[in-house]
Amino acid sequence: MLHAVIMAGGSGTRFWPASRRSRPKQFLELITKKPLLRTTFERLGGLVPADRTWIVTTAETAAPTRDLVPEIPVENILSEPVGRNTAACVGLAAHAALEGDPEATCVVLPADHVIGEEVRFRSALAAGASLVTREGGLLTFGVQPTRAETGYGYLEVGAEHARQGDWTIHRLERFVEKPDAEKARSYLESGGYLWNAGIFAWRAADLLEEIARQLPELAAGLDTIAASFSTPVSKTVLEETYPSLPATSVDFGVMEGARRCWTIPVDFPWSDVGSWSALDDNPSGDTAGNTSRGRVLTVDAGGNILISTGPVVSAVGVEDLVVVATPDAVLVVPKSQTQRVREVVEALREKGWDDVL
Amino acid sequence: MLHAVIMAGGSGTRFWPASRRSRPKQFLELITKKPLLRTTFERLGGLVPADRTWIVTTAETAAPTRDLVPEIPVENILSEPVGRNTAACVGLAAHAALEGDPEATCVVLPADHVIGEEVRFRSALAAGASLVTREGGLLTFGVQPTRAETGYGYLEVGAEHARQGDWTIHRLERFVEKPDAEKARSYLESGGYLWNAGIFAWRAADLLEEIARQLPELAAGLDTIAASFSTPVSKTVLEETYPSLPATSVDFGVMEGARRCWTIPVDFPWSDVGSWSALDDNPSGDTAGNTSRGRVLTVDAGGNILISTGPVVSAVGVEDLVVVATPDAVLVVPKSQTQRVREVVEALREKGWDDVL
Repeated sequence: MLHAVIMAGGSGTRFWPASRRSRPKQFLELITKKPLLRTTFERLGGLVPADRTWIVTTAETAAPTRDLVPEIPVENILSEPVGRNTAACVGLAAHAALEGDPEATCVVLPADHVIGEEVRFRSALAAGASLVTREGGLLTFGVQPTRAETGYGYLEVGAEHARQGDWTIHRLERFVEKPDAEKARSYLESGGYLWNAGIFAWRAADLLEEIARQLPELAAGLDTIAASFSTPVSKTVLEETYPSLPATSVDFGVMEGARRCWTIPVDFPWSDVGSWSALDDNPSGDTAGNTSRGRVLTVDAGGNILISTGPVVSAVGVEDLVVVATPDAVLVVPKSQTQRVREVVEALREKGWDDVL
Repeated sequence: MLHAVIMAGGSGTRFWPASRRSRPKQFLELITKKPLLRTTFERLGGLVPADRTWIVTTAETAAPTRDLVPEIPVENILSEPVGRNTAACVGLAAHAALEGDPEATCVVLPADHVIGEEVRFRSALAAGASLVTREGGLLTFGVQPTRAETGYGYLEVGAEHARQGDWTIHRLERFVEKPDAEKARSYLESGGYLWNAGIFAWRAADLLEEIARQLPELAAGLDTIAASFSTPVSKTVLEETYPSLPATSVDFGVMEGARRCWTIPVDFPWSDVGSWSALDDNPSGDTAGNTSRGRVLTVDAGGNILISTGPVVSAVGVEDLVVVATPDAVLVVPKSQTQRVREVVEALREKGWDDVL
């Protein structure tokens, strides 16, 4: 049967000061009206029922996750004691799905992306799930690039393998790390590259077989954890074992070396909403090109992203800035440098100002 | 006898969001360690006793003024029902001083300026007071310019009249409104111009005589108010009469047309601290040239003025900005445009966001 795995292990740094350790990006209501995690769940509507939907979250965010998606059985919310990257995350979820369904096929989705055209999105997911259920292999969905973006990883598309409804399934040649501007342009022009959206489909057993073949240490740890499922010591075993698992991504650690990999080019609107500047895409701007949320006032200021969850924010005579204000913290950064918010979080940690992390 | 009149009727707009209607600039502890009003009072120490010190304040700030300067008798704190500019303010204080001292000489000082070298400052005040007590006339103190400042009014210095200790008393030719950059340069080069610091000395009776001669309507209103002093209806008369007084400055409305005017060039350090950018003068900057107050963090940011009375402020990759954060309001403005904060206050008023005014 088809299962959905929502990866919700974000650390809450890129959208500081709105996001915090205890309230990462997927819980924010800034970007969309509903928190992204809620939207991600609702977007699956009709394709996968709640009792076959799994969320992998952190110890700190398990409780707010339960509150935000009460439809999902609490035992389907898997809490990582520490983050060990995506290979461990999807492996844990595969074991959980297999526990009650030896034939489980999983579609895997990040909790904090923005995706449009939901019907088309579900159609693509269904096509991918159908292929891997029938033929095996690991499949990733790749977004047709619309600009020479340097902030995303890419997929190199191989030969056409099959068609299914509206969708064409290709072999996946390789994963490509975030390119420089020149490479990004050549990828866009060639037409043979897709953005790596981090959305996957596989039979749970196939994923675990590839993990066992390529990452035996990870497989052994996951087996230990899975063996304790439904026993009174499951939580203890998870907490003792998980931190020692090798931390590697499913992209480069599992799929890159897997025997058979597929990709489906998709064209629904997609954004990973990677930093504050992504809010510029949002069509709520004023005539001066400011994007505003909350009580915000501008005087002769243009092209800014101005966000408040508390204080009145007033910007005078400034351009292309991001200003984010919460009751206890304020961020000011040029739109072109919003990736550097991580550095702020790091500096706050060094200063010991943990109360605002 | 010598009296001091402290003009403390500021409206609290230029240092928004730190300053508010109920807490104008003279109450802030941002600029100096002590609020400027307190420092202004203490700076008079030894020259004028507290019971001959008068503070003209607003209805909204009378109570915090009493708290800040408890040494001054409460009846010496005069509360303007509405601001009617400085001619009315100093006229009211002159009547109050005359009430118990027909020979009163007043030195008049703004409550919210920064002044260094206090001994020299008091020496200059004493010299000016001595001259007007002896010879009459209205006297203003002028600060020797150190740069071609366009943000101040100027005084054109006339012929030398007398010497007194370290000080030279000149005739005052005229008041000059804030000049453009070219004029300011020529004033600086000529050596014959001083900054108008808004610090005055006169016999109370002489001031009121000039007001009566030049501004009879103002004089009549002030007489009505003064006639009610020490009666049970004094507050009612003040509240009924004051709002109808003509609003004009003592500089242009009284001194410009007065029969005899003096000026004393002074060279003690002085700043009217007219906007946030004045804090740049303050030598508390870091190596990147940022001036900071409160919990402030910079990453690759230089030349900024960063102030917080509440939230953590983090600035990344920005230059020459002013960022001021309070628990309920945040301001972002280039250092070169801090005069425009008044426009923000105006816009807030129009929006009806009175809670942050």
